[in-house]
Amino acid sequence: MKNFSIAKSRRIRSTPYTSRIEKQGVTAYTIYNHMLLPAAFGPIEDSYHHLKAHVQVWDVAAERQVEISGKDSAKLIQLMTCRDLSKSKVGRCYYCPIIDDTGNLVNDPVVLKLDENKWWISIADSDVIFFAKGLASGNRFDVKIIEPNVDIMAIQGPKSFSLMEKVFGKKIIELNFFGFDYFDFKGTKHLIARSGWSKQGGFEVYVQSTSSGQKLYDHLFEAGKEFNVKPGCPNLIERIEGALLSYGNDFDNNDNPFECGFDQYVALDSEVNFLGKEKLRKIKLEGVQKKLMGVKIDAKEISLTGSKDVFDDNNNVVGELRSAIYSPHFKKVIGIAMIKKSHWQSSQSFKIEINDNSFSGNVCDLPFI
Amino acid sequence: MKNFSIAKSRRIRSTPYTSRIEKQGVTAYTIYNHMLLPAAFGPIEDSYHHLKAHVQVWDVAAERQVEISGKDSAKLIQLMTCRDLSKSKVGRCYYCPIIDDTGNLVNDPVVLKLDENKWWISIADSDVIFFAKGLASGNRFDVKIIEPNVDIMAIQGPKSFSLMEKVFGKKIIELNFFGFDYFDFKGTKHLIARSGWSKQGGFEVYVQSTSSGQKLYDHLFEAGKEFNVKPGCPNLIERIEGALLSYGNDFDNNDNPFECGFDQYVALDSEVNFLGKEKLRKIKLEGVQKKLMGVKIDAKEISLTGSKDVFDDNNNVVGELRSAIYSPHFKKVIGIAMIKKSHWQSSQSFKIEINDNSFSGNVCDLPFI
Repeated sequence: MKNFSIAKSRRIRSTPYTSRIEKQGVTAYTIYNHMLLPAAFGPIEDSYHHLKAHVQVWDVAAERQVEISGKDSAKLIQLMTCRDLSKSKVGRCYYCPIIDDTGNLVNDPVVLKLDENKWWISIADSDVIFFAKGLASGNRFDVKIIEPNVDIMAIQGPKSFSLMEKVFGKKIIELNFFGFDYFDFKGTKHLIARSGWSKQGGFEVYVQSTSSGQKLYDHLFEAGKEFNVKPGCPNLIERIEGALLSYGNDFDNNDNPFECGFDQYVALDSEVNFLGKEKLRKIKLEGVQKKLMGVKIDAKEISLTGSKDVFDDNNNVVGELRSAIYSPHFKKVIGIAMIKKSHWQSSQSFKIEINDNSFSGNVCDLPFI
Repeated sequence: MKNFSIAKSRRIRSTPYTSRIEKQGVTAYTIYNHMLLPAAFGPIEDSYHHLKAHVQVWDVAAERQVEISGKDSAKLIQLMTCRDLSKSKVGRCYYCPIIDDTGNLVNDPVVLKLDENKWWISIADSDVIFFAKGLASGNRFDVKIIEPNVDIMAIQGPKSFSLMEKVFGKKIIELNFFGFDYFDFKGTKHLIARSGWSKQGGFEVYVQSTSSGQKLYDHLFEAGKEFNVKPGCPNLIERIEGALLSYGNDFDNNDNPFECGFDQYVALDSEVNFLGKEKLRKIKLEGVQKKLMGVKIDAKEISLTGSKDVFDDNNNVVGELRSAIYSPHFKKVIGIAMIKKSHWQSSQSFKIEINDNSFSGNVCDLPFI
């Protein structure tokens, strides 16, 4: 595939770490929440193997926060997500599909409960802030909604625990998955969560003090030498193998949570009030006609820049491939596809055209690994 | 400045014209409304001279539409914009700043009144659809809100009138500025407005029939040979000279319409009800402390990837440069900056650092030309 340059401007925001990653050899960017998100440091397969064996530091400042505070903040947060947050605790992260009143998805953020009346929504790539502002205004909620100055860096990979223990002390590796707490770096407190957009384990530092964050970024590379630390970014191979779904890629505002396998987060039997609840009840009753599944394709490469239909033997469309890449682990192309009900049975076969050649594939359950 | 590749994926949507512009030599992209927007076909200065003398066809499908229809559609549209739309007419386009209830800007779209109860909001780069959905839900409005399948191509430049007359007949050049109507191309009706993101004159075709639109795209290049037609895109030099403001670049959700020179669109004295009206009344009464102005800098080049502070002789920050480029017309760098009140007087001087060198500049009124 031919390469095209990205035209930078103020609208495509740089991060506090951009100048650093450009010195460290970033080769490609994507845009996420109107901000630069590194997409490659050289070959993705090299980064994949490194991520699974060592530790990487990622500039994921593009995971922006929507801060909601004030008397009605819990009410607004609950209205936006189908997950029951009535028993949520301060100091915990919650994966929360955000739903509009048609029952479709708006985003799939991680929500951090900072306080009973203060929340951060750590968003995927859509302007949740304007959804929140519209809802707050229309419902006359007493809340304050801002995008705070928070620029996340992630430390991911099996050796992230050793590196973070070296920098922050033993207490940090006692954090439970999706727990967060505050940790000191040279006199500055940082909110650090045990989370991140890989299945290799790790942490996310929600940097509010930019200068301390930049010093921490540099320090992690110094302290991490013994753990073979490298700069990195969310890895397409690793995230597909682990079925970490991506809003905009695998699903969007035309899909509902049942089609995306989010059933466990749809609290239809709870008492809580959220948008689309009645619509989702109806959808569940009627059953969905398509859902996200894994696919394996007997091909050695693919370069997907949009949706790609998959067919049965009679050339009927039976699904739509949305993300895909060659997996060194499976030695074939793997992907995430929205598959019609007729083809939900695991290992059912289909056909797909890649560069004018026909390949056969099979559906499978998610995650792959 | 070093070039970085853009990593394509389904989330970074291609347009119906992408494969065409890639054959025609697009060299850089930006992302706008989660979609590819061409940013250069070779040197921007060459395209600038061509645009001012001839005609270009632009893939601006990234100017997405938010369609609002239904009984309360006019009420919702009016709630979102500070412009008085009570006398708006079907068949007209309206430049409408969208305001949140803090009085700050959410977007600055062109609104098309398709029918008394059907509107398109042709948006700049932010998810207005979720703002509209939040407001509609909170206010229990009876509306339907979707992103329709509309992919705009623009025909811009002084010879656009001759080209469009050749393709669509005499009636099309009778369209008034910001008027729209429906025109036939080989049996398919297309909504065409006299509008576009340049000051060189032209049209925008709101393509709903993708296959007819692609044929029209190809036909415009055939029919346009005699007018020296070329592929193009919004041009940074031309748009700064003409002071076509860009949401995200020149202003954003931290700025209010008075700071951006939108005074004529803020209908404080009208009867209409819109978000932030009381806030804006207060802001107007107190007066703003910063506003967007033009700047001219005695430099031969600049490559701006974010905001850049400008200083007085005592090194106090007196403003923030937000967009800038070398102008062949003025033979210096020109730009759009948010300038503090102390420096509003035209021709007032300031200092700025570019690549470690200090340059002097002067503020001026907008537009430049």
